[in-house]
Amino acid sequence: MKPLGTLYGLGVGPGDPELLTLKAARILGEVDVVFTSAQASTGKSLALEVARPHLRKSQEIVPVFFSHTFEGAASREAHRANAVRVLEVLSRPASAAFLTLGDPMTYSTFTYLLAALRAQEPGVPVAVVPGITSFAAAAAAAQIPLTEGNETLAVVSGARGPERVESALGLAENVVILKSYRHAEEICQLLDARGLADSTIYSIACSRPEGFTVQGLDAVPRDANPYMSLFVVKGAGPTVGTP
Amino acid sequence: MKPLGTLYGLGVGPGDPELLTLKAARILGEVDVVFTSAQASTGKSLALEVARPHLRKSQEIVPVFFSHTFEGAASREAHRANAVRVLEVLSRPASAAFLTLGDPMTYSTFTYLLAALRAQEPGVPVAVVPGITSFAAAAAAAQIPLTEGNETLAVVSGARGPERVESALGLAENVVILKSYRHAEEICQLLDARGLADSTIYSIACSRPEGFTVQGLDAVPRDANPYMSLFVVKGAGPTVGTP
Repeated sequence: MKPLGTLYGLGVGPGDPELLTLKAARILGEVDVVFTSAQASTGKSLALEVARPHLRKSQEIVPVFFSHTFEGAASREAHRANAVRVLEVLSRPASAAFLTLGDPMTYSTFTYLLAALRAQEPGVPVAVVPGITSFAAAAAAAQIPLTEGNETLAVVSGARGPERVESALGLAENVVILKSYRHAEEICQLLDARGLADSTIYSIACSRPEGFTVQGLDAVPRDANPYMSLFVVKGAGPTVGTP
Repeated sequence: MKPLGTLYGLGVGPGDPELLTLKAARILGEVDVVFTSAQASTGKSLALEVARPHLRKSQEIVPVFFSHTFEGAASREAHRANAVRVLEVLSRPASAAFLTLGDPMTYSTFTYLLAALRAQEPGVPVAVVPGITSFAAAAAAAQIPLTEGNETLAVVSGARGPERVESALGLAENVVILKSYRHAEEICQLLDARGLADSTIYSIACSRPEGFTVQGLDAVPRDANPYMSLFVVKGAGPTVGTP
């Protein structure tokens, strides 16, 4: 078998280039090739922008394409094609980093790529460098605990509507809602109906210069773009309404 | 009012000194005073050990004491006394960092200290620097996703027994169990009874030289010390058992 370089699944954190780990910054400067997950529609990569100050001039940057709207077979085919592309690079041999915003193991395209890579080449050398999540950054910016003592923290996707949010509110004192996208309005209505509007933090790209964090749903700007937005709901949970 | 220095709630990450953020490393080198949360029983601080390579020789290091066994009034009194001590330092004026393993907003003593500080001095200048959590590090080491797609991630405390674990298993595909302490045995029995023993990752201080991560409860060493241990349970959730 041809020797393969190592692929690093590399979390670049929530957006502030200073919120990379020392390890991520070191590896970015060492690898031969950098893969960035670009939006198929725009070709832009915020992860690459965050990583840029840590790259050498000579590094090869290779965009790989994903779309959040891919489903089922189209999505599997995109991951398979990206895995082929990554394996071609590793077999030069060359080392490479695959950049992800936040953490590579938390709602990231990296885990799909990793599964597709292993399906094609089970022994592929991989290392994962964890990153700061958007919700850890939002809690830090708002200076509110994500979870304390014996409380539960639930992290849910709002991409399919408020159903997951609703079940989480009954279980966990603290609920983080990511990927609310076009269901943001329904989710806000649900939080409002539960009396949780004032204790909810809303945040968009909070560690970026253009980002912000507000307390209370009334403070959410009407024209807020739900991409990269998140909610941190405090004060929910199984003991609400019990004496 | 006397001017106060800024207090930084500073996450040093899961144990590997390279898993600090660039921001945390910079601030550690800049502050006048470093507060470390020491175990009352041993006086040791792993957070300080992790931060040490980033400190200047001239920095003042002040241990503050907490005990995980403190409850109710004793705990409140300890946080109040620590807040007095911190405010004394800030009013010199001096800047200070309060170190926490992992992330300052995720099951950390910092959030209690912050509440006690604000009760005494509402305008105290505070900034929070997020850190890599132990469970993000464990998932990275085991190379398993913490959560994907539209799945839910629940992070629970096992300190009061398996009750929170049980309710989380019905809600979330992915369940992280921290603070299992003396309930580790019961929690393992519960996971086994649910058929989740093989898909559970067990990890202790995985980013430290003495740490490790294993897949499957059968692989957990009999003499494992549950301090700093955690479980990542995969394959639970609302759809288990439904066609």
